[in-house]
Amino acid sequence: MNFDAFFEQRLSGLREAGNYRVFADLERHAGGFPRATRHLPDGSTQEVTVWCSNDYLGMGQNPLVTSAMKDTIDLCGAGAGGTRNISGTNHYHVLLERELADLHGKESALIFTSGYVSNWAALGTLLGNIPGIIVYSDALNHASMIEGIRHSRCIKRVFRHNDAADLRRLMAMDDPAAPKLVAFESVYSMDGDISPISDICDVADEFGAMTYLDEVHAVGMYGPRGGGIAEREGIMHRLSVIEGTLGKAFGVMGGYITGSAVLCDFIRSFASGFIFTTALPPALAAGATASIKHLKASQLERRRHQDVVAKVRKALDAHGIPHMPNPSHIVPVMVGNAAKCKWISDVMMERHGIYVQPINYPTVPVKTERLRITPTPLHTEADIAKLSMALSELWSQCALARAVA
Amino acid sequence: MNFDAFFEQRLSGLREAGNYRVFADLERHAGGFPRATRHLPDGSTQEVTVWCSNDYLGMGQNPLVTSAMKDTIDLCGAGAGGTRNISGTNHYHVLLERELADLHGKESALIFTSGYVSNWAALGTLLGNIPGIIVYSDALNHASMIEGIRHSRCIKRVFRHNDAADLRRLMAMDDPAAPKLVAFESVYSMDGDISPISDICDVADEFGAMTYLDEVHAVGMYGPRGGGIAEREGIMHRLSVIEGTLGKAFGVMGGYITGSAVLCDFIRSFASGFIFTTALPPALAAGATASIKHLKASQLERRRHQDVVAKVRKALDAHGIPHMPNPSHIVPVMVGNAAKCKWISDVMMERHGIYVQPINYPTVPVKTERLRITPTPLHTEADIAKLSMALSELWSQCALARAVA
Repeated sequence: MNFDAFFEQRLSGLREAGNYRVFADLERHAGGFPRATRHLPDGSTQEVTVWCSNDYLGMGQNPLVTSAMKDTIDLCGAGAGGTRNISGTNHYHVLLERELADLHGKESALIFTSGYVSNWAALGTLLGNIPGIIVYSDALNHASMIEGIRHSRCIKRVFRHNDAADLRRLMAMDDPAAPKLVAFESVYSMDGDISPISDICDVADEFGAMTYLDEVHAVGMYGPRGGGIAEREGIMHRLSVIEGTLGKAFGVMGGYITGSAVLCDFIRSFASGFIFTTALPPALAAGATASIKHLKASQLERRRHQDVVAKVRKALDAHGIPHMPNPSHIVPVMVGNAAKCKWISDVMMERHGIYVQPINYPTVPVKTERLRITPTPLHTEADIAKLSMALSELWSQCALARAVA
Repeated sequence: MNFDAFFEQRLSGLREAGNYRVFADLERHAGGFPRATRHLPDGSTQEVTVWCSNDYLGMGQNPLVTSAMKDTIDLCGAGAGGTRNISGTNHYHVLLERELADLHGKESALIFTSGYVSNWAALGTLLGNIPGIIVYSDALNHASMIEGIRHSRCIKRVFRHNDAADLRRLMAMDDPAAPKLVAFESVYSMDGDISPISDICDVADEFGAMTYLDEVHAVGMYGPRGGGIAEREGIMHRLSVIEGTLGKAFGVMGGYITGSAVLCDFIRSFASGFIFTTALPPALAAGATASIKHLKASQLERRRHQDVVAKVRKALDAHGIPHMPNPSHIVPVMVGNAAKCKWISDVMMERHGIYVQPINYPTVPVKTERLRITPTPLHTEADIAKLSMALSELWSQCALARAVA
């Protein structure tokens, strides 16, 4: 078999469908976020404003975080030097896990190399080891949760997105004696909608199920201490597992779960994706700890964030740019056509120095192609004006429908 | 179901079998490696010498690496701020991928958040997407490769460890028209033995199979530029994929694959574990690039490393401490009893301040329990003398057999 020809053929398929990804080659600037330098293939560069980062609060350039990282590099060096079990556990991991357990009001926490791995390994291990367990998974759960569930090969039911009644209907059909787990998210990344956590917990309680909540798009940003939507709603104690990331609002990298001491110990002891991987560098653990500590105490970033989000929505409304209404910080500007979505993104970058990645199928359904805009506390009024005017200009050029005021 | 009781029961099983892991809580010291401070549960500390780190060359404290990381934090901040596709590609990722492609003489490279994820995602994607492909997997392949293969759900044959004849026997039994891939490692972590790469490539060529080589325990340490065993043997071009890590000899964190441009592009475009995860922090990419560049040019670390390895073996021989002979830098001191292995490790730590993690079942087979010693260029003659004397003392106390000179 000619393998390279096979790969080429599959890549051509992506190109023809308009789904081939070209990565924007950026250089971030500490202190200058959301500004960045874009490196072009011809070696030239361009200054751009990033409107699609998941460094939601700009904590990636917070001096508390960067200083903690640099100080820890001075103290401990670059990498961890091993898996957690074989010389790789550093005191900064231990401190970070304590900080995370406290953040979510749980007995324990366990850190992973990424949010993806935390979902994959935690769900894969829980579901793969409890005999006869049935998982109930929200229809829009993230790829990492789906892969973890797939990995476990347990029985899987998919409930309608954010629909506690549908969850109840499905759970009622199964053997009451079968162990059960409900897996869902708080803020969904692409639509920015928020799940009815309390209702879902009610149903889970009725059937004695564990609850597994992914808060990666909420930690740091919601709740009085940045504990996420469950903290804001005062129901963290109702979740068996709260999973989060250190790579979005906290500005660093890594993922984690929190839960009972024995649950975390179980995953620590049996998850292949935790056991057989090099631990996070101590500097990342220290940076993340500094970020979490700061966002536990400071309301400033969260307040400014919500303020800028509201301003962006208002500016888009003023220009009749349609965006999906939702109660979160994610502003999906709906284009509804893959080619136009890509074209608008390209022209925004080239003509206006505005970077918003187009989101096309399969990440979102066909005809819901969008620009996923993520305002941060650091976007200025001028940035917002420029963004909305550029979108308005291109909306006319693409003959796209305006939103009705 | 009482989930916590279930977890507790499974953990009790581990404890009874002597396989419950207790992590040593260390604090590494940049400039002081292999010395570290151990934090004890009572809050006290102890100075220890680490003899089981995978920071094989001590590059984790090399000022070129730590300076590159700190400089990049100053320039770019803490995290990447997104997935590679959505604002997370930083110029330092691009430069690192070029450096890695050059290291292995390949057209392209692709970085992942860990070596575990690189194996899981690359093998899972290759094997999951090529219809009818059969994988031939070495019996001692790493957990991350096994999980990637399992994920793909392709047809799997396991060949006897390092046995090209057995591989040939298996391949000859399968449909000649079926696409095939052979997955193996160069240096195996627990026994430190090295595979017959050339012989395996001969068999793969005979059957038109792709070859996938994991060099995580070899990159940086073997070959004139640290390209690994395949570089040392002048056969890098015979491998379809060379996979490696940035977290062992290079001293940082992350994993990668290298191969043809179209193969890397294929995995970049289809691997869930690559697409849906936050990119490595720019500082880690810059640190890894500095480390690779240095080890391409400098022979000093490799020479000293091999020198210390030889001295450790000689010292163990002088005391009759049995260690598994192998042609690599890994020195498995064979205890052959789980309880004694754990006890020796505990006493070495408490009495002598020497940290060597015991390796028990299921990581190695029962009755081959061992202390996996990894010398570095930074261990001194005094360290070696102390290690061998401590082992000798405990060997007598445990009434373990001495090796025959």
